[in-house]
Amino acid sequence: MLKNWIRPAKPAKDELKNRLKAAQAKLETQQMLLKDKKLPVLVLIEGWGAAGKGSIIGQIIKHIDPRFFKVFSMNAPTQEERRKPFLTRFFEKIPEAGKFTLMDSGWMDEVTKERLHGVLTDEMYAQRVDSVKRFERQLTDNGYLVLKFFFHISQKEQSQRISALVEHKDTAWRVSRGDVWQNHHYERCMDVFDRYMEDTNTPSAPWYIIDAKGKKFAELQVMETLCTGIDTALQNDSLAVPLLQNVFPLVKMPKLSQVPLKDKTLSEQVYKEELKKLQAQLGRLHNRLYRKRVPVVIVYEGWDAAGKGGNIKRLTGALDPRGFEVLPIASPSPQEKARHYLWRFWTNLPKDGHIAIFDRSWYGRVMVERLEGFCSENDWQRAYYEMNEFEQELHNWGAVVLKFWVQIDKDTQLERFTDRQNTPSKQWKLTDEDWRNREKWDVYEAAVDEMLQKTSTTYAPWHILESVDKRYARIKALKIVVAALEKALSAEA
Amino acid sequence: MLKNWIRPAKPAKDELKNRLKAAQAKLETQQMLLKDKKLPVLVLIEGWGAAGKGSIIGQIIKHIDPRFFKVFSMNAPTQEERRKPFLTRFFEKIPEAGKFTLMDSGWMDEVTKERLHGVLTDEMYAQRVDSVKRFERQLTDNGYLVLKFFFHISQKEQSQRISALVEHKDTAWRVSRGDVWQNHHYERCMDVFDRYMEDTNTPSAPWYIIDAKGKKFAELQVMETLCTGIDTALQNDSLAVPLLQNVFPLVKMPKLSQVPLKDKTLSEQVYKEELKKLQAQLGRLHNRLYRKRVPVVIVYEGWDAAGKGGNIKRLTGALDPRGFEVLPIASPSPQEKARHYLWRFWTNLPKDGHIAIFDRSWYGRVMVERLEGFCSENDWQRAYYEMNEFEQELHNWGAVVLKFWVQIDKDTQLERFTDRQNTPSKQWKLTDEDWRNREKWDVYEAAVDEMLQKTSTTYAPWHILESVDKRYARIKALKIVVAALEKALSAEA
Repeated sequence: MLKNWIRPAKPAKDELKNRLKAAQAKLETQQMLLKDKKLPVLVLIEGWGAAGKGSIIGQIIKHIDPRFFKVFSMNAPTQEERRKPFLTRFFEKIPEAGKFTLMDSGWMDEVTKERLHGVLTDEMYAQRVDSVKRFERQLTDNGYLVLKFFFHISQKEQSQRISALVEHKDTAWRVSRGDVWQNHHYERCMDVFDRYMEDTNTPSAPWYIIDAKGKKFAELQVMETLCTGIDTALQNDSLAVPLLQNVFPLVKMPKLSQVPLKDKTLSEQVYKEELKKLQAQLGRLHNRLYRKRVPVVIVYEGWDAAGKGGNIKRLTGALDPRGFEVLPIASPSPQEKARHYLWRFWTNLPKDGHIAIFDRSWYGRVMVERLEGFCSENDWQRAYYEMNEFEQELHNWGAVVLKFWVQIDKDTQLERFTDRQNTPSKQWKLTDEDWRNREKWDVYEAAVDEMLQKTSTTYAPWHILESVDKRYARIKALKIVVAALEKALSAEA
Repeated sequence: MLKNWIRPAKPAKDELKNRLKAAQAKLETQQMLLKDKKLPVLVLIEGWGAAGKGSIIGQIIKHIDPRFFKVFSMNAPTQEERRKPFLTRFFEKIPEAGKFTLMDSGWMDEVTKERLHGVLTDEMYAQRVDSVKRFERQLTDNGYLVLKFFFHISQKEQSQRISALVEHKDTAWRVSRGDVWQNHHYERCMDVFDRYMEDTNTPSAPWYIIDAKGKKFAELQVMETLCTGIDTALQNDSLAVPLLQNVFPLVKMPKLSQVPLKDKTLSEQVYKEELKKLQAQLGRLHNRLYRKRVPVVIVYEGWDAAGKGGNIKRLTGALDPRGFEVLPIASPSPQEKARHYLWRFWTNLPKDGHIAIFDRSWYGRVMVERLEGFCSENDWQRAYYEMNEFEQELHNWGAVVLKFWVQIDKDTQLERFTDRQNTPSKQWKLTDEDWRNREKWDVYEAAVDEMLQKTSTTYAPWHILESVDKRYARIKALKIVVAALEKALSAEA
């Protein structure tokens, strides 16, 4: 696309001025509509070094109320950021509903730089492109407006700008080594940029190439495209998105009603012995995976009073507190609700070598959010493959991903609820909502069955923990975790 | 995608039967909703030979009223079809609003066959992929539901099916030489299919891979995907589509108000001499382009009473009547209105070596349809690049594409209207609508200016014919046509 790009005709000075004024006025009006319609806008500005990306962002934000936007100048990832999946630092910065994020260089810059410097093999590059396309599609599918600009200047223009900047000590700092390198390898960069843009040019998040030779003209191009994009997006209030095939390697799961619970028990003695042995093993494994920098993500879902908390305790009891975190997931905060539903999980991923245990998780999307009508049918239908994609990102990053469904029957739950009610020290654990949820057991069970069928993948499988006897469930969980970590570590070695 | 495809779990017999029944009942209900919401559905079934594509189509249509669908079994293009742009025979078959088209093999089959048999170079293949993506995007952007299925069976399964079919004389005819060849070159075909599907797998027209080993199960997969797709599409009633960058090589055009008209005259004598000379030249060129099989598409647009008819007459006066056609474009018929707005032009393209002259054209979209509110703003905004894409298809096919805007000023129009009114033999040429349009001269002029700026490309440029002196305009048109044909023919030679 970049290679056969044709410079657009530049309007005469007067026309340019008038159109720019009109676009600026329009943007000022649009921000109120954006707020009302809760449209989040992500503006990504990529392009050649010294093409003037930053200064155009400076111009655009003059016409947006400061409460409604955030600007991020993205540099190379820090050491800390390199310990997370590569999309994390971009996902973290997505705007809230009704607001703007403007990004000065972003995931294109990172991927193409790594490509140019030989960090990414062909295969890794293809995986990055897939990740990027999924990321952008997940945003637009979930109601985000994503506008991607590429600021284009010629090699000669770039060289002149670099020289001019370097001459004055006030501006010399703005020229990076990368800019100079780029200018010396302009054709090679062009090849990689062109290919990347072809690979990621989708109808819902297309590329717009900006002729960045003239500052005012560049601003006009961006402003007009921005206004048009917002207009279009504002019209699509409650869009339904075509559902994609769930093309992940699925593991067949039984229906909950077919999972035998009665015989799944352990004597106190066996339990104690096993617990001691497994916790010791897990402790050793934890040290090894810390050294090998293997990240681990463990999800707990299950019926109320099924024993999730106690199960998690037995797991963490064996772990070094500096190397794990338990994340209890309640209903989302207003900041979380205003963003993509996976945002609060992307922002809480462990560093490599660490373990994150989610007490409830993103699967709320296809259980409570589905059943309570907090999202549309199209939303939760889409969520099955969106979550498979999310976990595939984790897997590709090198994480061990395990998911537990803690299972009890309806009678057991009633017993435990009654016990909680009658035991003052446990009363805090029982809420009216628990009773309400209990009434919907059957529809929940159907939703859980569907979830297990559609999201148990080879790389992030569900395991059912039979928890009528909590001891049995705890030992089973520990065994599964130990086996999975051993497997991952032996693959690493 | 095909290569790392994972076979879905097949449900148990009873479940399969129940789900199939449910899907069939659902489809029967949906067809009425489709009709009400005017949703057109294009179902493309591609896949391996002997995978059972035809018989599944047979099953699906049992649940659709015969008035609501058409089935097309596409074979290799005929000699006649090869004389049109390759998408023509597919575009011709798109459904009307509220109806289904089911296609047994289609554009994937054609492109991949040509790729496998070395007809398409890398470059031609890339161009085909671009054409296909644009075609599908233009359909979905214009409200079509496009569902693409690939029927997948293993090499062994295919081989067994072919053998079984060949054994009986009643079924032997169903095995083509192509099927046998495919089975012998299964891996090579897999490579090409996989690549094509990767290349054309877009969020708005994604691929669904069907496990075609079991007939009932294959039917279930198709039916359930079909129902889900229809449900989703029904929710998107008046979708606004992101506008893409108009990335075509544009030629700068003057504003109509800046086109001098007064001095553009010719004396009767010069006119006659030139006319004779140019018509003779054009006649000779027409023969040559017939032999060289160069197709020509000429568009006439212009003000009412500007002299389009007389201008076209001078052009056709030089042509062999067997080799050209004049297509007067009035408001669309109900069948035309019920389809993509370019359909009536795709279905009226000339054969190669022929000339089609459109007296008014697809540009109605951004003039009358825009100004009379016959389409949404999003529709006509999109139309600029959709028409540039359409003409690029014609250009890539090898056509000479020329577009004339026949220009007069407002006073001249009034004179001619008055003359028509006062001359009984010309009164039929003047309607009330002409007067009404005249009142909107200024908004029309702005729309025409925008059209000229945005759709005059190097490969399909607009030419303004100054027609206050009709003789001048006629000679200018002839000169432009002669020059363009000479250029095309010398490039051919």
